[in-house]
Amino acid sequence: MARLIGVEDIEYLAIGAAVLGTGGGGDPHLGKIMAQQAIKEFGPVTLLEPDEMPDDKMVVPVAMMGAPTVFVEKIPNGDEALHSLRRLEEYLGKEAYAVMPMECGGLNSTIPFVVAARAGIPIVDADGMGRAFPELQMETFNIYGVSGTPMVITDERGDWSLLNTVDNNMLEHIARGIAIRMGGVGHIAEYPMTGVEMKRSSIFHTVTLAIELGKAIVHSREKQLSPMPQMEAALIKAGYGKPLILFEAKITDVDRATTDGFAKGTVTLEGIGEYKGATYQVDFQNENLIAYQNGEVLATVPDLITFLDLDTFKPLTTETLRYGYRISCLAIPTPSIMRSEAALKVWGPQYFGYDLEFVPVEELNEEAKIRG
Amino acid sequence: MARLIGVEDIEYLAIGAAVLGTGGGGDPHLGKIMAQQAIKEFGPVTLLEPDEMPDDKMVVPVAMMGAPTVFVEKIPNGDEALHSLRRLEEYLGKEAYAVMPMECGGLNSTIPFVVAARAGIPIVDADGMGRAFPELQMETFNIYGVSGTPMVITDERGDWSLLNTVDNNMLEHIARGIAIRMGGVGHIAEYPMTGVEMKRSSIFHTVTLAIELGKAIVHSREKQLSPMPQMEAALIKAGYGKPLILFEAKITDVDRATTDGFAKGTVTLEGIGEYKGATYQVDFQNENLIAYQNGEVLATVPDLITFLDLDTFKPLTTETLRYGYRISCLAIPTPSIMRSEAALKVWGPQYFGYDLEFVPVEELNEEAKIRG
Repeated sequence: MARLIGVEDIEYLAIGAAVLGTGGGGDPHLGKIMAQQAIKEFGPVTLLEPDEMPDDKMVVPVAMMGAPTVFVEKIPNGDEALHSLRRLEEYLGKEAYAVMPMECGGLNSTIPFVVAARAGIPIVDADGMGRAFPELQMETFNIYGVSGTPMVITDERGDWSLLNTVDNNMLEHIARGIAIRMGGVGHIAEYPMTGVEMKRSSIFHTVTLAIELGKAIVHSREKQLSPMPQMEAALIKAGYGKPLILFEAKITDVDRATTDGFAKGTVTLEGIGEYKGATYQVDFQNENLIAYQNGEVLATVPDLITFLDLDTFKPLTTETLRYGYRISCLAIPTPSIMRSEAALKVWGPQYFGYDLEFVPVEELNEEAKIRG
Repeated sequence: MARLIGVEDIEYLAIGAAVLGTGGGGDPHLGKIMAQQAIKEFGPVTLLEPDEMPDDKMVVPVAMMGAPTVFVEKIPNGDEALHSLRRLEEYLGKEAYAVMPMECGGLNSTIPFVVAARAGIPIVDADGMGRAFPELQMETFNIYGVSGTPMVITDERGDWSLLNTVDNNMLEHIARGIAIRMGGVGHIAEYPMTGVEMKRSSIFHTVTLAIELGKAIVHSREKQLSPMPQMEAALIKAGYGKPLILFEAKITDVDRATTDGFAKGTVTLEGIGEYKGATYQVDFQNENLIAYQNGEVLATVPDLITFLDLDTFKPLTTETLRYGYRISCLAIPTPSIMRSEAALKVWGPQYFGYDLEFVPVEELNEEAKIRG
């Protein structure tokens, strides 16, 4: 049943979305403040069950796109994504019944709340990847045949562009070029679709999942307990696999660059506690992609790889990682529809340039699974 | 008075537009074929006197943008710029009464004929620079306060984008990014304006000028005479200064690269005949920018610098230049409104990164003027 999302839920959402954000998806703190401000000003937002979305009405994913390292420096005024939605509605000659996240990881879990509160429309409890990904064709909407265009991208100055492309790869290609020229960040409304299309192409209940993950971390921290049992329950309920701790380690190096509009790099770590003696590496492109132990693969995209602060279990985004941080590396088996052959072509390790077949993280880590 | 432009006029136009194109503006041969094909299929195009354009109707400059070196390899299907015009008309909710060239140099002198023939509307005998320039803010429309947006850009696959920007520099910046991601070339409809705006912001009679220059070259070649007297008469009539031959020389080196969506480089030459013993250099960014003799400046942008084949007087575009070609280097003083302080800020030598004040070519070459 539909329910109202208020300021406190956004607090949890931001934390849980950072878990699903796998290091990317933008600083959730900034998105949290924007969403909370909008809710304070315009009132709580209705979160719709996917089934409650009318089949013939339009729902539009809204988001920011660009390098998370730039998000932090170019604070949006909050109207940009709504502006994109309005221009898209004008072009299509119809109003959006609801918005939704394109990705429920990181900042982009909160942006739809900014738009929904301001526009006075609901959000659908679903998204297009159940995590965060760096590119616009990496959405289940694309895999299940929805066109990403028409889409609109707006910058903080008011420059905007309406885009129509022959396919969703060209959408990503051209929109990325625009976002770069806009200074590294653009605010988008894309993949406009009917309720029917949303129901067959999205991952359900990921907004609720992010809120539940946030609650698990906050409440377990208060009680000085592990959040893992509660997180596991929420993940299993939403169709993910059993989460596991891959390793605990201290960061010894972070090598990063903002290249082609993405934050790319590698984190190097040394094991601590029971992992002492081992060396770890995690490669990222906005999001964490591959985790290695002494050069052996522990987990690969699209399974989720997230750094949690060792003591507080707070999820850490890539741009905050620094030498000396002590972390737990969490892995979450992605929902099975994200592991289909068609899906792995779009976001498997090979797409990111790795000569690796995807192997489910639970198979790669029988041992860790038991520990988790 | 309005008159009809047929296939033969386009033959002349393409040659004259290559003179005004100053080495850039794209291969006029390709544009000529496209325009002639369209006229054969849809009939001659009406060329309107600027004064015949109704004050309150809309006129839209249409063009290709990108690196001329890419134009040659990605042959358009001819519908792209018309597609851009149609999408712009739909967005604005009104029809274009006429189209016009944004630049009367090179390929872009002919593109409006392709669109006009297909759309069954006239072309205004005027443009936005009286030559060719590499960037979209380098148009008299911009100098005289017309907004370049809304604009539409389309590629040969059918990808397209509608762009709205806060100013015409951002238009150039973002549209260039899109053109690069479209593969190096886009087809645009931009600076939509009323008849009144066109009349106060454009350079008149430049289509006719290009046709007259083409006639001068073809007819003098037939009679084995110099085209200079006829070219001079046509240029003076259109408000340009007296043309002059800067030097005659043989190309010894062409250094070029396609960078940031532009064809950039330097042509090095050795003087022949009465210029023997001197070394020449011409720098270009799509168009020829600066000509030097033994390191001394002979002419600078926005004055026009064009290579003509030494024997045939045929104008040569940058992408056709090769070692061993023997050329005459022609300079044409640009109309005085192109030399205003506001105008020189947008297209003077300093804009292109040169530590040079603009000095009119006729002042730099008192001697050459006499020779010319």
